[in-house]
Amino acid sequence: MAYSVTFLPDNKEYRINSDKETILDGAARTGIVLQGMCGGAGTCGRCRVILKGGSVRLDNGEIVFAGSTAAQNVLACSAYPIEDVVIEVPETSRLKEHQIKVSDDSSWADDTSLTLDSLAPLFHWIPLKVPEATLDDFEGDWERCRRQLVKERGRAVRIELEALRKLPVVLRQGDWQISCGVFGNENVPVVIDFAPGVNPPLSCGLAVDVGTTSIVAQLVDLKTGCVLGTAGTFNRQAAYGYDVISRIVYAAEVPGGTRRLHEAAVDTINNLITGLINRAGVAYEDIKVTVCAGNPAMTHLLAGVDPSHIRIEPYITAANSWPALDAKDLGLRMYPAGKVVLLPGVAGYVGGDIVAGAVVAGLNRSEQVKLLIDIGTNGEMIMGNNEWMVACACSAGPAFEGGGIGCGMRAMSGAIEKVEIHDGGEHVRYQTIDCKPPVGVCGSGLINGLAALHRAGLIDRSGRLVRHAAPSRMRRSTAGLEFVLAFAGETGHGKDIVISQSDIDNLIRAKAAIFAGIQTMLNLTGLNLEDIDRVMVAGGFGRYLGLEDAVAIGMLPPLPRERYEFIGNTALKGARHALLSRVIRKEMDTLARQVTYLDLSSGNEFMEAFTAGLFIPHTDLSLFSSIGK
Amino acid sequence: MAYSVTFLPDNKEYRINSDKETILDGAARTGIVLQGMCGGAGTCGRCRVILKGGSVRLDNGEIVFAGSTAAQNVLACSAYPIEDVVIEVPETSRLKEHQIKVSDDSSWADDTSLTLDSLAPLFHWIPLKVPEATLDDFEGDWERCRRQLVKERGRAVRIELEALRKLPVVLRQGDWQISCGVFGNENVPVVIDFAPGVNPPLSCGLAVDVGTTSIVAQLVDLKTGCVLGTAGTFNRQAAYGYDVISRIVYAAEVPGGTRRLHEAAVDTINNLITGLINRAGVAYEDIKVTVCAGNPAMTHLLAGVDPSHIRIEPYITAANSWPALDAKDLGLRMYPAGKVVLLPGVAGYVGGDIVAGAVVAGLNRSEQVKLLIDIGTNGEMIMGNNEWMVACACSAGPAFEGGGIGCGMRAMSGAIEKVEIHDGGEHVRYQTIDCKPPVGVCGSGLINGLAALHRAGLIDRSGRLVRHAAPSRMRRSTAGLEFVLAFAGETGHGKDIVISQSDIDNLIRAKAAIFAGIQTMLNLTGLNLEDIDRVMVAGGFGRYLGLEDAVAIGMLPPLPRERYEFIGNTALKGARHALLSRVIRKEMDTLARQVTYLDLSSGNEFMEAFTAGLFIPHTDLSLFSSIGK
Repeated sequence: MAYSVTFLPDNKEYRINSDKETILDGAARTGIVLQGMCGGAGTCGRCRVILKGGSVRLDNGEIVFAGSTAAQNVLACSAYPIEDVVIEVPETSRLKEHQIKVSDDSSWADDTSLTLDSLAPLFHWIPLKVPEATLDDFEGDWERCRRQLVKERGRAVRIELEALRKLPVVLRQGDWQISCGVFGNENVPVVIDFAPGVNPPLSCGLAVDVGTTSIVAQLVDLKTGCVLGTAGTFNRQAAYGYDVISRIVYAAEVPGGTRRLHEAAVDTINNLITGLINRAGVAYEDIKVTVCAGNPAMTHLLAGVDPSHIRIEPYITAANSWPALDAKDLGLRMYPAGKVVLLPGVAGYVGGDIVAGAVVAGLNRSEQVKLLIDIGTNGEMIMGNNEWMVACACSAGPAFEGGGIGCGMRAMSGAIEKVEIHDGGEHVRYQTIDCKPPVGVCGSGLINGLAALHRAGLIDRSGRLVRHAAPSRMRRSTAGLEFVLAFAGETGHGKDIVISQSDIDNLIRAKAAIFAGIQTMLNLTGLNLEDIDRVMVAGGFGRYLGLEDAVAIGMLPPLPRERYEFIGNTALKGARHALLSRVIRKEMDTLARQVTYLDLSSGNEFMEAFTAGLFIPHTDLSLFSSIGK
Repeated sequence: MAYSVTFLPDNKEYRINSDKETILDGAARTGIVLQGMCGGAGTCGRCRVILKGGSVRLDNGEIVFAGSTAAQNVLACSAYPIEDVVIEVPETSRLKEHQIKVSDDSSWADDTSLTLDSLAPLFHWIPLKVPEATLDDFEGDWERCRRQLVKERGRAVRIELEALRKLPVVLRQGDWQISCGVFGNENVPVVIDFAPGVNPPLSCGLAVDVGTTSIVAQLVDLKTGCVLGTAGTFNRQAAYGYDVISRIVYAAEVPGGTRRLHEAAVDTINNLITGLINRAGVAYEDIKVTVCAGNPAMTHLLAGVDPSHIRIEPYITAANSWPALDAKDLGLRMYPAGKVVLLPGVAGYVGGDIVAGAVVAGLNRSEQVKLLIDIGTNGEMIMGNNEWMVACACSAGPAFEGGGIGCGMRAMSGAIEKVEIHDGGEHVRYQTIDCKPPVGVCGSGLINGLAALHRAGLIDRSGRLVRHAAPSRMRRSTAGLEFVLAFAGETGHGKDIVISQSDIDNLIRAKAAIFAGIQTMLNLTGLNLEDIDRVMVAGGFGRYLGLEDAVAIGMLPPLPRERYEFIGNTALKGARHALLSRVIRKEMDTLARQVTYLDLSSGNEFMEAFTAGLFIPHTDLSLFSSIGK
């Protein structure tokens, strides 16, 4: 019972060893990452492949043979080989690296200019002149070094086996002058490396934003704090589920699921590392420490810890604070005795990415009240100042990432990111990512599109499409009214791109959730909208987001433009700052412990605010009375 | 350039990949352990094999072909295949498990009766009722446990990734009642395991005496302190060198030598573990912690740390105190996140075995002056009481382990362990281990034999064989006089077993070194022989040693018999006690730091005492005037 699956045109082969393994599993194992938004539930239809040889059994028991009509439309996630098979993977089903919009290096320029109070990286070399051993001073090599370290630094240190293995040779190579490589994250610093001589070699750190969709890594020179390179790619876990929830479900329900997702994340980071070190001309052993910022589920999966209970009431993580891990235990391609720090989270849906962001945004040092928003599936938010902080996750749903929207897609090549509607809806102009023919609409396009539809009078305040408006584009489908953004002739896949009533309903729910989250936090703290001194919008999403449109549809509060700030990928920034400053690293621990977590699912307050927000811009127009002024 | 080596009659094959690999290396890699005393130097002749097919190149460049006369006597350590070869390994060249005299379980009876102040094992389960998570109390699983642990125990704890990976499932399996498995060796205890329910499962520890010749392991129930089994076998490193020095040379000079010796030690222990857990009916995951006591070189090699500098002046270890290691990093067959403790040493030749022994012998708690002697290659000794301690290693040489003695051998089957000489040397009676026909003489037989020769007037006070004594057994060989202990007709290998003048010289040097070591320690502390209240003789060797003979030849001081005590394998006992008591574990750390190490190679004192000891019993007869009284 071991069948071979050959993937074309890659000509890669995988041997399936269990009748629980799907074509999708096989593809993932050979490095072919298929699109998917439903986590292998067989509902999104994105992982379509063509069966060119052999036969498969589908989830529903049906057998499909190569050559049959059904063989043209096999969903990889739901097909189990029952003999050796040959599978063709269409381009449209692949998630390709270049499709992910990851900020290129230049966009990080402002990032690197952020100044730290002082450079005190998590790993640093301590030059040490060790008294030479004699017949009268015959302490062991390590005791000798430790004595000197304690003398100079006044604190106890531990040592890792790997460092001990290097010590005897290094000590004599350096003629009793060495550099001790110390990982200083812990209360008791630990020596993880040695180098001969008191002029220490290069040491690098890696800052990683472990996102659900994409993973971005930045290579940093720990001595100078300079960024040596930034690279990003899609998270290979995508093959197992589009969003956080479907990944958790995969981990919980598929035997070995947690391990597979863990390996997929590690593979993704390792590939980024290979590119980064090659371009920077450093060796993988030069990377001594990695700091990862991710949401709780991503953090669990990277550590290989089952995240199941995050999605079950009362939504508990296995841990919010994580011990420093050994690189070799995770399988990261770096110095094997190097350390991996996972930034601490607050609760099931408020993770190290938000905590890192809050410190980068300076909430904990600010006298002003700041609101940090990361608009994604879970709409994490944190608000406060140096005296108090409150955080919540408002489960906006995957609409802004293209999920649950008929023509929704991630911010990839060919995604409509901006929409203009003219002539009462008769003419539509749009802008796509990479100026490719459109194949779908991404989050910023959806927000912009919703605002444009409202402005053009094509939807009313309650979000209903207006039946007789714009006859050439407004039409009735079996599911209700829909508005055509792009006709088949102009699109990249030869199909119309439309926004349906159901899409609009989803978008309105998503935007209402975010605004309701902000309101609930304000109520808890007894503040009004005006009391928010600064709104900081984080995430790659923020870069494409049209602020006026987001306010116009009632997603973000109608505050003066100058109070808003787009602060980019604060998870990555925070990870880098933690790498470079033990003070900032500690601030993150402190902040994570001090934040009051507001569970929006308990109590009626959020639900009431949410319901009131299911209008454009809101039921209570007085809240948005400043719009247009 | 990859040749196959087939070993007969085992019919095992090994592929040699480098022209640096000998037949001996190949044998070791396939698990065939050959005898050897010279560490592959080609001088001891113990690793003889027969070349049955193909050809080899010898160290001296000579080529030997199968079928030639030379092919009957190929030394595996010096032969490099130059094509595919077939090798027959004679029984006489093999080191076989049953040949090693390891104390059987029954002999540990007294051992297990030793009482500890209190049972506080290095690993223990802490039952914990964890407050169930609710929507209002949504801390992470680990924070929840930690809070409870700190509340109950009042101290900070860390956690290992492996434990964290188990926690979410265990917590819910146990319905919020769990057992936390804590390794308490460190200042900050670390949680390494979890089990559901407050009735914790079995947990075992392993105590290991990592000897140069043999390794003995004891499986212990950590809850009750009961010994579940004891097993010993030869140290597989033996294939790479007979004694400590030849192993260090191998590690220092052969590329990858340290790693091979490391793997050989781990393999040896793993085999012992397999036997122990099968007999005890426990699982390897039940073993949570292992404590190893060994001399410094063995400890380095077990950790995979290069011991080269131990044999080069000023004889420095890489470390005397060792960090707790992760079982998975060493490759030990136990709970992967379990810990391995290497007991601390004092200096290059005074290791954790002696430190463990000193604590077992109670030096650090005694008001009386105690002397602990471990007679082996290095004659380690430690003397003192609860106020002071001094230790030294007197490099007795391998004579007492059978090294450097023509017919010397380890205490294995067929070794003469006791000798009686009658009728002025005309008749010899001997006793062999396992009552097998004699094939050599082991340490106790040599001491006993030397004393018997002296008593019979066959050697004079300076150790010269007396030429015309016992004509039927005393004879002249090319190398000088020799005395026949057993004639070819009565031996197991059909060759005479003799003691030569050179053997006697070696033995006298060895015994003189031990006595000189004791004298030097006494001088340093201003004490006399009579001030030693107790002499404790440790090691398997002690079990066969005739005390009167050892005193008669001037090896041990002439103190009243009742001051002597044979205390068996104190390294193993010490390792077990450290396993079972964190107090004792700490005493070992303290003792190792407090002992004054006396380097006998510096200064003239030892050399003078040594030279004076090159008589039987001693130049200064007044020291031994009590003998026979």
